[in-house]
Formats: sequence, C-alpha cells, structure tokens
Amino acid sequence: MTLTLYTYDWLPEFPRGFVRDIRVRWILEELGRDYQVKTVPTQPKSDAHRAMQPFAQVPVIQDDGMTLFESGAIMMHLAEGTALLPEARKAEVAQWVFAALNTIEVAGSHWINLVLAERMPEVFGPVPAPAVIAHAREGLATRLAALENVVSKKEWLAGEFSVGDLAMIDVLRVLDAEGMLTECPELGAFVRRGTGRPAFKRAMADHMAHWTAADEARAVASPA
Amino acid sequence: MTLTLYTYDWLPEFPRGFVRDIRVRWILEELGRDYQVKTVPTQPKSDAHRAMQPFAQVPVIQDDGMTLFESGAIMMHLAEGTALLPEARKAEVAQWVFAALNTIEVAGSHWINLVLAERMPEVFGPVPAPAVIAHAREGLATRLAALENVVSKKEWLAGEFSVGDLAMIDVLRVLDAEGMLTECPELGAFVRRGTGRPAFKRAMADHMAHWTAADEARAVASPA
Repeated sequence: MTLTLYTYDWLPEFPRGFVRDIRVRWILEELGRDYQVKTVPTQPKSDAHRAMQPFAQVPVIQDDGMTLFESGAIMMHLAEGTALLPEARKAEVAQWVFAALNTIEVAGSHWINLVLAERMPEVFGPVPAPAVIAHAREGLATRLAALENVVSKKEWLAGEFSVGDLAMIDVLRVLDAEGMLTECPELGAFVRRGTGRPAFKRAMADHMAHWTAADEARAVASPA
Repeated sequence: MTLTLYTYDWLPEFPRGFVRDIRVRWILEELGRDYQVKTVPTQPKSDAHRAMQPFAQVPVIQDDGMTLFESGAIMMHLAEGTALLPEARKAEVAQWVFAALNTIEVAGSHWINLVLAERMPEVFGPVPAPAVIAHAREGLATRLAALENVVSKKEWLAGEFSVGDLAMIDVLRVLDAEGMLTECPELGAFVRRGTGRPAFKRAMADHMAHWTAADEARAVASPA
C-alpha cells in the first residue's frame, strides 16, 4: 500500500519551506519510495487529527497499517534496514538524529520562539527583552560552534550520508535562514551539501507546490 | 567488558536528581546490567570530555568499544533487543521516546530556561518579563494537557513498560518538581508509576550517592 503523509491543508507564507513534513518527504525521496499526501486542517484542529496525533502536530504517516508521528521516529522507521541507517553504525547514526532534535533543535527552538515573539507578538506572544533573546542566541551559538568543529573534519556525520545528516541539516536550515550560520562556514557548507542533493530538491519542490495548490484551492473557495 | 557511564565530577545542589545520567542509570538497572561510573570535570570542561562529546555534555557511555552520547541514542541502543523495545512495537515505542525529547522536553526546556533565568540570573542570564515566562508556560501546558489525555487511557504508552515510558517519565519529573503537573493528575500518577519501580529507586539512590561522594572528596581536597 502507498505510504500516506499528512501535512496541513494551508499555512501562511512564513513557515513554508520549514514545516517538518519536509523531513519525511526528503527521506522518502532519498529512498525512492512512493507516497501520497493527505491534509489535516490547520485551524481549528480536528478530532480526526488528534486521534492520529495527540499534540495535533504534523507530520503523521500511515505505512503498512501503522500510524506514526514524531518526525524523528518517522525518519528512523523509514531508514531502518536501508543505507541511511547502516546496521554497523546504527547507534552512532541515531546519536546524530538525537543530537539534531534534542541538542541543536532544543536550543534553536528556545531562541526562535523568542525571535518570533519579537517579530510577530500578535501570533507568538509578548515581546521579550533584547537581552533575553541575546542570551538564548549565545547558548545556541555555543552549540553550533561545537558542531562546526565536528563538521570541519568530515563530509557527513557518520560515514556515508545517513538519516543523521538528513535530520541535522533540516534542523540547521531554519537557523541558516535566520542568519545563525554566518560565523559557521563549515556548517553552511554542510547544509548546502545536503540541500544540493536531488532528493532534497524534489522534496522541497513538492512541499512548496503543496502550498501553492492550497492557495489556489482557497481562491476558488472564496473568490475575491 | 563492563559498561562505563560518564557523568560530572561535581555539581551544586539544584540540578542533582535531574542530570541526564539518571536516564542511563535507570535503563541499566531495568536491564540488570553492570556498569561503572567515571567522571568528567564540570568546570572547566576538558579536552578529553570534548573528544568524547563535542558539546561537552553528559551522559556519555562506553560500551563494547563504542563511545556514545545523547541520552536518547544511549537509551535506544541499550533497549535494542530487549523487552523495553519490543520488535513488534518498535516504531511506536521510538515515537514516544522522540515525543518525550522533541515535543515535551523542547517545550519544557524553553520554559525552564526562562524560569531559571528569573531565579538565578547570575547563572542563567537576564530576567525575562513575567508575561514572556507565562507565554512559554502556556505552550508547555497545552502539550501536557494533550499527553494527560493519552495517559488517562492506559498504564504505559505502548503496551508494557518500555523505553518510551522511561524517557517520558524522566522528562516529566523536572516539570513535576516545578509544579507543572498539578493540573494533570493522570500524568502525576504516570510519573509515580515509573519512579516507584525498584530500578528507578536504585538508579536515583546511586545518582544521589555520587554527589554526596563528590562533596566528601571536595571537603578532603579543601579542608575548612
């Protein structure tokens, strides 16, 4: 049965390109696996969505009768038994998936939540003091500098390109877009090695086409 | 060869009981595996520590010639092939490990970083405005309410007690200690089911004994 990937039915411009369904699209393209996309309503969240994903987030997949959420778990599940998670280096590759999601993304989220509140307080809450944002930025910068050092010594994090690189590069992309990699040229190059892959390009094109189609469907539903 | 677990050589009172080596101690106790503890200096970080763990965090383990960091990866590695990660529900259990570390802990860290800054600005940076802290708390509370609903329907997250429960309960413990579970009685009970296990009690006793021994070693090194 074709794998089904769930993402939102529509989103405003600013998160496009960074919604976590891209991680799943990317790994599916790397593996050459077919999939279909279904949607859940962004606002308000639906009971059908919550029944699949208790936190009402995306992505969710349905694969071979199983419903699965959490981008990290989906990536690991799809990578299992493939060259993206080689048996001989399994723990090491998993280490980089967790480093991406629990060391870099944790620090990145803390900072980005504060930055978004500064930029769009009507959506993301009260504007934090500049010193509070700067402190969060400093904590993140320390972790990125450590990762810069790791990446300066190798092309990929654990041997050949793996799900560890895929997860890390997708976490770094938003930090790159927010200017956090200007002092980390090796990390910038690492991100470009990943996003230059044909599978990433196809995934991103499909991801963006999804939102364009969503805009068009809205225009038909509510003509000006 | 005996597994080696690395943690810090000393820490002040406040993080004791919550350092992430406890996750590894707990799973090792659940599995009945022997281990020895070695330490890395808390301050300043050592090059030997950075050579094992580029972010100079703990825990790190050495197992069967392999050095591994990231508590999530260590837990998954140790659980592999055991009843804590049953083959038939592997993806589902991994889903809850990632939900613990990338959905609950991400939101928890954002809030706790702000709370710690308010409480100890000399260590954790400028004091955030109360409204900024309250907003982070609200985001976390929404996720906890969703998890409360999940846990109200079952004893453990995916069948029998698994590494998914272990990870989630350890992430929830600090939120419980900070008063975040008062409106989530089911989550409180879930945490107590976990921390009531003999393996957790042994792990916590050893964890706390480590800091007591560290205090005593310091007292000998610098007599009053």
